[in-house]
Amino acid sequence: MTQTDLDEELHDRAPDAPDAPPEPEPEAHKDSAKDSESLDEDNHLKSDFVRSVKDALHEDDFERVYDLVEPLHPADIADLFELFDERERLGLARAIRDLMSVEVIAELNDWVREALVEALPADVVAEIAEQLDTDDAVAMLEDLDEEDQQAVLAEMEPEDRAAIESALSYPEESAGRLMSRDFVAVPETMTVGDLIDFLREHRELPTEFWEVFIVDPMHRPIGTCALSWILRTPRNIPLYDVMARDQTLIPADMDQEEVALRFQKYALISAAVVDEAGRLIGLITVDDIVHIIQEEASEDILRLSGAGDGDINEPILVTVRTRLAWLVVNLGTAMIASSVVGLFQGAIAKFAILAVLMPIVSGMGGNAGTQTLAVVVRAIATNQLTDSNTVRMILREIRIALTNGFALGALIGTGTWLLFQNPLLGAVIATAMVVNNLTAGLAGILVPVTLDRFRIDPAVSSAVFVTTATDTMGFFSFLGLAVLTGLA
Amino acid sequence: MTQTDLDEELHDRAPDAPDAPPEPEPEAHKDSAKDSESLDEDNHLKSDFVRSVKDALHEDDFERVYDLVEPLHPADIADLFELFDERERLGLARAIRDLMSVEVIAELNDWVREALVEALPADVVAEIAEQLDTDDAVAMLEDLDEEDQQAVLAEMEPEDRAAIESALSYPEESAGRLMSRDFVAVPETMTVGDLIDFLREHRELPTEFWEVFIVDPMHRPIGTCALSWILRTPRNIPLYDVMARDQTLIPADMDQEEVALRFQKYALISAAVVDEAGRLIGLITVDDIVHIIQEEASEDILRLSGAGDGDINEPILVTVRTRLAWLVVNLGTAMIASSVVGLFQGAIAKFAILAVLMPIVSGMGGNAGTQTLAVVVRAIATNQLTDSNTVRMILREIRIALTNGFALGALIGTGTWLLFQNPLLGAVIATAMVVNNLTAGLAGILVPVTLDRFRIDPAVSSAVFVTTATDTMGFFSFLGLAVLTGLA
Repeated sequence: MTQTDLDEELHDRAPDAPDAPPEPEPEAHKDSAKDSESLDEDNHLKSDFVRSVKDALHEDDFERVYDLVEPLHPADIADLFELFDERERLGLARAIRDLMSVEVIAELNDWVREALVEALPADVVAEIAEQLDTDDAVAMLEDLDEEDQQAVLAEMEPEDRAAIESALSYPEESAGRLMSRDFVAVPETMTVGDLIDFLREHRELPTEFWEVFIVDPMHRPIGTCALSWILRTPRNIPLYDVMARDQTLIPADMDQEEVALRFQKYALISAAVVDEAGRLIGLITVDDIVHIIQEEASEDILRLSGAGDGDINEPILVTVRTRLAWLVVNLGTAMIASSVVGLFQGAIAKFAILAVLMPIVSGMGGNAGTQTLAVVVRAIATNQLTDSNTVRMILREIRIALTNGFALGALIGTGTWLLFQNPLLGAVIATAMVVNNLTAGLAGILVPVTLDRFRIDPAVSSAVFVTTATDTMGFFSFLGLAVLTGLA
Repeated sequence: MTQTDLDEELHDRAPDAPDAPPEPEPEAHKDSAKDSESLDEDNHLKSDFVRSVKDALHEDDFERVYDLVEPLHPADIADLFELFDERERLGLARAIRDLMSVEVIAELNDWVREALVEALPADVVAEIAEQLDTDDAVAMLEDLDEEDQQAVLAEMEPEDRAAIESALSYPEESAGRLMSRDFVAVPETMTVGDLIDFLREHRELPTEFWEVFIVDPMHRPIGTCALSWILRTPRNIPLYDVMARDQTLIPADMDQEEVALRFQKYALISAAVVDEAGRLIGLITVDDIVHIIQEEASEDILRLSGAGDGDINEPILVTVRTRLAWLVVNLGTAMIASSVVGLFQGAIAKFAILAVLMPIVSGMGGNAGTQTLAVVVRAIATNQLTDSNTVRMILREIRIALTNGFALGALIGTGTWLLFQNPLLGAVIATAMVVNNLTAGLAGILVPVTLDRFRIDPAVSSAVFVTTATDTMGFFSFLGLAVLTGLA
């Protein structure tokens, strides 16, 4: 890929230079995504289309691959890469040459990009990184190992290199890594007219932005102006009178999940990032946040189920390692629950029906616990469950658990009584069901709330404790009551 | 609440009218959220603060409640409502009078808003609805029952009423309900200067917008202009030369989840909504989408675990009904699995250790199945798993399942052998573990993929099938092998 190709790509959606209005395009093609032959009604790449590209690749017909891929949006080209296996991806990258734009690279899944980037020489990676926005370049470089990263940085222009090194100096997943350094900040003394002239005259300013920051002489933000306010205000009005003074400032070391919550809560389009002295050093835009909201919400479901990052593009060994670690921990807890059953071997040998029914009690407890856990983990993650309503929520879960416990207990108790013609057995399983539902409800809220107090991610560790509680208590209450009541 | 209060609130962040520049505020208070006494470092309302408000409420000291709440951002006032119980909420609404602004109402959780709105007379609700953006007004009214809805609509101005009725005519959770009708659309013949003059002269235009749509004489969108491009371009350049022709058009009946995916995929800030004839009828902005992305991602985790919408503000009876329905279905599947154990009662009576070990095999299968399921459900929801890579992903899951199965089988097999001094028992449980891990991996991907083919939401129904498969196969393989090998 040459510098010029990248450059052309980088500017294809940007407005044209004020002094050189562009030729109008020969024909207006709106919404190319929908018109295209390559996407189905769900906006997926059609499998026929993917197959044709694949076939052309396998026949080494690079011309045809290029022609097929050429009409696609960069986001769809990135999707295409993710649908291929590793060998095909390298072939595709070679075949589509200049279509392999910075937008495509920015859109690629982290794992897919990492594998592609590792296959490229350092000077080519450096060239790509220089064309990307700082935040995208950081995303591309942060996962490389130290040595490769240094090799790439060494090839870069000093200015770009400094920006990336400064971003990398902030903790992973912090605002400092996410922020862009391309923003527009002007002094409060300007009028609307001054600002418009300033924007028209300074070609080096970013082309796409949504708000202008007003800063004091120390470069601390004192207000923001949405561009629509500027466009609707006469030239002679000072910015000081147009700007909103109330703004959300993001400290550079704030965690990206927290940043995402602020964007949601205050419906922000962009926000200023400040250093420790309160000086404006960067800008975060909502389109960078959208991915994080999605990731963080998905993260909870995947962590709760022990699937790690759960990325289907992850190398298989990473996936096996993550999932196996979780399964081994669960094997430990399953053995604890089993040892409870072990205490009652004698009773089971005498009355084997106990073994038939006991998984129902433990399993139903597990299901009820998972319900509560899912609700509580999401409520904690979205700041809906705080110190102020924890007690109310615990009482709520207890009421739910008791209601469901009694309903399920009545159901299974009656069923057991009728099926086995044994009213005592019915009473025992019904009581155990109530006890275990209560255990599930309590564990489902107390475990994640407690972990959160100790600043441990409740999504990662809660399930193990909750399952251990419901399995153990399920077996213990059912088998214990059976022995106590003289059933076996 | 008077019309004027609402009006003041509605405009407190908007720019001031061009012809009447405002008095500068007495003092600039930036980032009020952070400076405030009421928020902790996580941007939660401090529990001390919530308690003071609560105490003041219980003492009927409405003045004090007002003074405490007054410095809060509307989003924080909304949070405060959610932290209170139902009675306190009504008291708070009465105490804070004009602070109960449209922004607060727009930010409230659906359930909390519904309860509050139901407690208000129709004319007050109508007055609030008229001050809200159409999309927020629709969100407020759509959950009311038919009769209340009609009563409110009857009190509204004909124009606002028509806008809301038109929005309500689109299906729930569609783009037509989400879209705002306040957008700026201009003909392609305008120059940049014409547009700026037009915006300055027309007071009725929206105050906050990010892009301008260019339409043809049939009012069909032919391009968009980010405001920053307009600000950076000389007045004499025609819009036709500045606009981007490539745009994503959203059909009004598109499902909101699909809309959210487009916004993410193409990093949109706003997008045009079109009717069947391709005419521009509305605008969706990314800040409306952010909530949906969050909701849709949370929905999957909550549905997978059978917790319905999992909203902690839901009336408790709704929660009980949702969760109980799921638990009853699971009781059915648990009984199916149990009946498999029932087939082997004789073996268990002879050799009770089987009952001790069997929950380990079924439980571990359940865990492995849940891992695969969580990954697959998210991959389907985010369009990462499509026809084109399903086969590759199935093969991937089989490899993972076999690897983990053999690892866990070796572990539990060796442990059992040593603990019970019975190599055959070790071999049986090891083999059952491999078989059940494979079952889990296959069910974990085949069930959701198949449901998705039939257009059934895989998050809702997959878990039941997968758990049934892993429980049944876990018991059957372990107990069956034990009998086959003559262990019992």
